[in-house]
Amino acid sequence: MRESASGRSELGLYLALDEQPSHLPQYRRLFMALRDMILSGDLPSGRQLPPTRQLASILGISRNTAKSAYEQLQAEGFIHARPGRGSEVARLPERHQASHATTPVKCQTLVAAEVRAEVAAEPRTLPLQPAIPALDAFPLNRWRQCLARASGSPHLLASPPAGEPLLRAQIAQWLARQRGMRVSPEQIVVTSGSQQGLDLIARHLLTPGDKVVLETPGFPGTAHSMAAAGGDCLFWPQQALAQAQLPPTARLLLVTPSRNFPLGHSLDAHARLALLQWADDVGAWIIEDDYDSEFAVGEAHTSLFSLSAHPRVIYTGTFSRTMFPGLRLGYLVLPEDQVEAVLQLRRYADGGLSSLTQRALGLWMAEGHYDRHLSRMKRLYAKRRSQLLSLLSETPASDWPCLDAGGGIHLVLGLPVTWSDRALEARLAAVGVGSRALSLYQAATDQQARQGIVLGFAGWDQTVMRAAVMQLARVLNEH
Amino acid sequence: MRESASGRSELGLYLALDEQPSHLPQYRRLFMALRDMILSGDLPSGRQLPPTRQLASILGISRNTAKSAYEQLQAEGFIHARPGRGSEVARLPERHQASHATTPVKCQTLVAAEVRAEVAAEPRTLPLQPAIPALDAFPLNRWRQCLARASGSPHLLASPPAGEPLLRAQIAQWLARQRGMRVSPEQIVVTSGSQQGLDLIARHLLTPGDKVVLETPGFPGTAHSMAAAGGDCLFWPQQALAQAQLPPTARLLLVTPSRNFPLGHSLDAHARLALLQWADDVGAWIIEDDYDSEFAVGEAHTSLFSLSAHPRVIYTGTFSRTMFPGLRLGYLVLPEDQVEAVLQLRRYADGGLSSLTQRALGLWMAEGHYDRHLSRMKRLYAKRRSQLLSLLSETPASDWPCLDAGGGIHLVLGLPVTWSDRALEARLAAVGVGSRALSLYQAATDQQARQGIVLGFAGWDQTVMRAAVMQLARVLNEH
Repeated sequence: MRESASGRSELGLYLALDEQPSHLPQYRRLFMALRDMILSGDLPSGRQLPPTRQLASILGISRNTAKSAYEQLQAEGFIHARPGRGSEVARLPERHQASHATTPVKCQTLVAAEVRAEVAAEPRTLPLQPAIPALDAFPLNRWRQCLARASGSPHLLASPPAGEPLLRAQIAQWLARQRGMRVSPEQIVVTSGSQQGLDLIARHLLTPGDKVVLETPGFPGTAHSMAAAGGDCLFWPQQALAQAQLPPTARLLLVTPSRNFPLGHSLDAHARLALLQWADDVGAWIIEDDYDSEFAVGEAHTSLFSLSAHPRVIYTGTFSRTMFPGLRLGYLVLPEDQVEAVLQLRRYADGGLSSLTQRALGLWMAEGHYDRHLSRMKRLYAKRRSQLLSLLSETPASDWPCLDAGGGIHLVLGLPVTWSDRALEARLAAVGVGSRALSLYQAATDQQARQGIVLGFAGWDQTVMRAAVMQLARVLNEH
Repeated sequence: MRESASGRSELGLYLALDEQPSHLPQYRRLFMALRDMILSGDLPSGRQLPPTRQLASILGISRNTAKSAYEQLQAEGFIHARPGRGSEVARLPERHQASHATTPVKCQTLVAAEVRAEVAAEPRTLPLQPAIPALDAFPLNRWRQCLARASGSPHLLASPPAGEPLLRAQIAQWLARQRGMRVSPEQIVVTSGSQQGLDLIARHLLTPGDKVVLETPGFPGTAHSMAAAGGDCLFWPQQALAQAQLPPTARLLLVTPSRNFPLGHSLDAHARLALLQWADDVGAWIIEDDYDSEFAVGEAHTSLFSLSAHPRVIYTGTFSRTMFPGLRLGYLVLPEDQVEAVLQLRRYADGGLSSLTQRALGLWMAEGHYDRHLSRMKRLYAKRRSQLLSLLSETPASDWPCLDAGGGIHLVLGLPVTWSDRALEARLAAVGVGSRALSLYQAATDQQARQGIVLGFAGWDQTVMRAAVMQLARVLNEH
């Protein structure tokens, strides 16, 4: 700028300065402005920069500000100092016009009050939306006490990749107490929900092209996890799984033997043993997704894991429904000889989870809050289920069959054949009622696929449900 | 047992009852004992069970207990009732001897006091262990206040898979403020640390066999994540990356341009622009791992992400060092056109993270605690670094070269050529001093590999470091 000090260069500098975020220190803005001019070619390689004294006087800034900017340019290699000749722009590789200098992104500045408002805002769920437990009945204060006790300085250090030892011990004890399962804490890997468990297992067990047998209906996420790991997914209705016609080449079978999602069917002992025999015979693995056996009607059936004479069953559980969805904790129970390989994968997949939530949940279970909360919720959900059924009985839906097997935290109504469940879901969403179309959970190839609507009843009291059912009745009457 | 009531069957039942966990209700133990006998073949298909009244009298239990056990056996399909003939064992598939009935796993029962002791126990770190920030100077009470405020009922609902909106907005603002990066919150995906970010990107971008260029030395986990996604890893020393001899067939380059781990070298503007030009020319992607630019000496250099005219750079950051390792939070900054694909993968990889820690960190940043804490730590780490160097100057290590570029939270000493860094690491661990061998971070194929020892100085005060350096001096003197 000294020798070639054209009006254009100076104007460019003013413009470039103007584009820099105003909250930054002045030397930083000057550095960025000069850097952007070098990058854009406005200050080409070899061009000499004016002495800092001159630049400072042109811009009306202190010389130290100019010096700091030059120092940073030099530190990063944009300019270099030549003895007796001042600073000149370094020889840099050719470069396309920088897009960032011309397309500033607006950067909102949230003030503290707005931030607090955002944190305080209740995330939105729609009444009757499935998979939401009774957050209104969750003993939040007791949970916060566990959080507070868990948030001492030890939570600053990372938990092992397998999970916090206290939590793993508690899960093992709970499985023994409630599911009659005999597992050691060393077989347990804490995950951020069942989804991560499925992902780890798929990556551990599958080679691209391996056949995977999945239930239909089922969780759509399951098929995606399997496909992402290269699995070739085949869909079977749960009841048909039991007939021992499963492909001999399958590597993996994923099943919810205690409560199919979302229909709630369970497999009897004969079907369970047949599946285990098949897995033994063909050398396949079984993932037992026990996602809500806690809310079965009566007692949950003996797990596949417990029935397995040979260790070919991997068990997954989740706390999303028994605690709350925002917790994002679940677990795998692995055969002993698979633990090390899965942990190795886990180390490089995410390295483990926050110590805090794991420690808090460990305390929560150890002190009996978990068992007590589940007993209370089981009673509450039975009550809310019958409340919803009673409300529905006064609507046109009263003639539709209840497709599910009771229990759980949702129910499924079969739709008349002329209806589209996705259209109904959309119409209900438009009037503020959450629901899910049954067809969303069925394979496109499913011959026995049928239309239905899944309604959650666990998360809302009778008043909220009554208002939602009135909206539902209105939508049905308009049909 | 009625018709064929042999002493053996009765004895078997007593034995099987005895094996069941004593804390379970009696009917449950009876159910499990009978179930195990059916599974083991001691009660074969077609065998009639005694009437409940008779069984109750044999065992000295109430009839209702026996009835409850039979009901559960029937519900699960182990027995069925035949009108007028009582209950008989169902026809079940043949089955190998169950291993679970004969190999009970001992299940410790932690009492509340032991549990609290375990939670209170400080997880162990060794003095001078790298990658541990100053937990002794972490403002734990202020953090716990943020946690408490974040733990209201909204945290019970799940955050979106991309992360909590407040946290993403704060990260975008922080990157603008501290790194001069212009990104919108929509480009940010919150991860459980850099490791998950690398894993997601590798799975998103790589097809098996794709060439991946990695720095050496570098994080060993990086190569594992890339290999797990099928990447074929090539190792290059950081300085050699700049010479534009990179393979034209590479799909991905992973680089720590602002501070190599663990040597702390940075790339100048010329090298950065050459890498970007190469990526543009060959259509490769660059992952910029900015894992501790926060602790650079002076100001951190302009990020590769900011220099990139075309969006071919993915930026990753972590809070493990700036906050604490147990937080397990980090983030990716993605080019706008890659966000949806990565989020799709993330939905099925783990579905997202706990709302609580994300909300607490969002508050922490919004209220200025993050910036203030970093400024304090930067001063403290400069002080602790010079304290460690001064302590080392009085040991035989004083002659060894300091290989790293200053700053950060560790330093690297080059070992004399006759030494083995892994042997030294083991000897130091034996006397309670944490350290890492430099060779652990180098590719086996690295021609320029050298022996050195990585010592963390951020996590300990002068007293602890003095004791550790005395142990180090003793080990060196014995050499």
